[in-house]
Amino acid sequence: MKKTVIAILVRNQAGVLTRVSALFSRRGFNIDSLTVSETESHAFSRITVTMEEDAYVKKQLMKQLGKLHDVREIEEMHADEAVFRELLLIKIKVTPGTRQEIMDATNVFRSKIIDFSADSLCVEITGESPKIDAFIELMRPLGIVEMCRTGVIALERGKDCLKTLE
Amino acid sequence: MKKTVIAILVRNQAGVLTRVSALFSRRGFNIDSLTVSETESHAFSRITVTMEEDAYVKKQLMKQLGKLHDVREIEEMHADEAVFRELLLIKIKVTPGTRQEIMDATNVFRSKIIDFSADSLCVEITGESPKIDAFIELMRPLGIVEMCRTGVIALERGKDCLKTLE
Repeated sequence: MKKTVIAILVRNQAGVLTRVSALFSRRGFNIDSLTVSETESHAFSRITVTMEEDAYVKKQLMKQLGKLHDVREIEEMHADEAVFRELLLIKIKVTPGTRQEIMDATNVFRSKIIDFSADSLCVEITGESPKIDAFIELMRPLGIVEMCRTGVIALERGKDCLKTLE
Repeated sequence: MKKTVIAILVRNQAGVLTRVSALFSRRGFNIDSLTVSETESHAFSRITVTMEEDAYVKKQLMKQLGKLHDVREIEEMHADEAVFRELLLIKIKVTPGTRQEIMDATNVFRSKIIDFSADSLCVEITGESPKIDAFIELMRPLGIVEMCRTGVIALERGKDCLKTLE
């Protein structure tokens, strides 16, 4: 099933994340990733959710979200009209025999080594999700110590935006 | 007050994000940002939370989080022992007079223009939070159309990790 990315503009109130995530879990919607952070205005936060659901479920969800008091705007982000990015930090086991392989992959993927020890390397990589997934699968046989990905964020292309914040 | 970054390893169960965020809001803890996404194992997700709280509140919170059934591990990330990164997408108004200024700033900050239209530019920038904050403040007088930041993610330096996932 295709991944859906939904951007939600909410009032920066205590408990708003709980109300949004409770709506997802109460209805059995499965969240793949979620990020929430302040926007250019302290009064608003922006939540980005990715999930795999069919069109009917998605429509229901957007309707329910729209009813929440703190939700100012909701929009599904489409691949042909928006830019999507994700950030991954990944720590990989290193031996003298694998270090060069990891460094070569890091160059090809235009990623950056940000920590370097005798036994491990930490790589920072930014891109669309398929690129991040490909890098993880490339590193898996070498030994992933741990990783942390932000989940997707998205902005519409051109000058359109979710809503002018006033 | 100094920002606190907490990494939480949780079982990938429906409703776990709601239980974690409910604990924050019920106790009046103020979240600055939160990200949640799958780890290298489908069975676990990793939540990263940033907040500004004093040492007492922080200790109470970590204790409460540890009591949640789905929480496998909690750790505060310290600046001298961990790498922190954040990703920002920002759309800026453009006029013939400001385009060069934005492009110069983008180069200096080692960020990337990922969308370009007659009236606006979209920039992708990765780094520690102070760098992201500085870029936002630099762009503010030019006119921010909208922005979306992921919030901080963090990994410990060296070969230590939150927990081996089995």
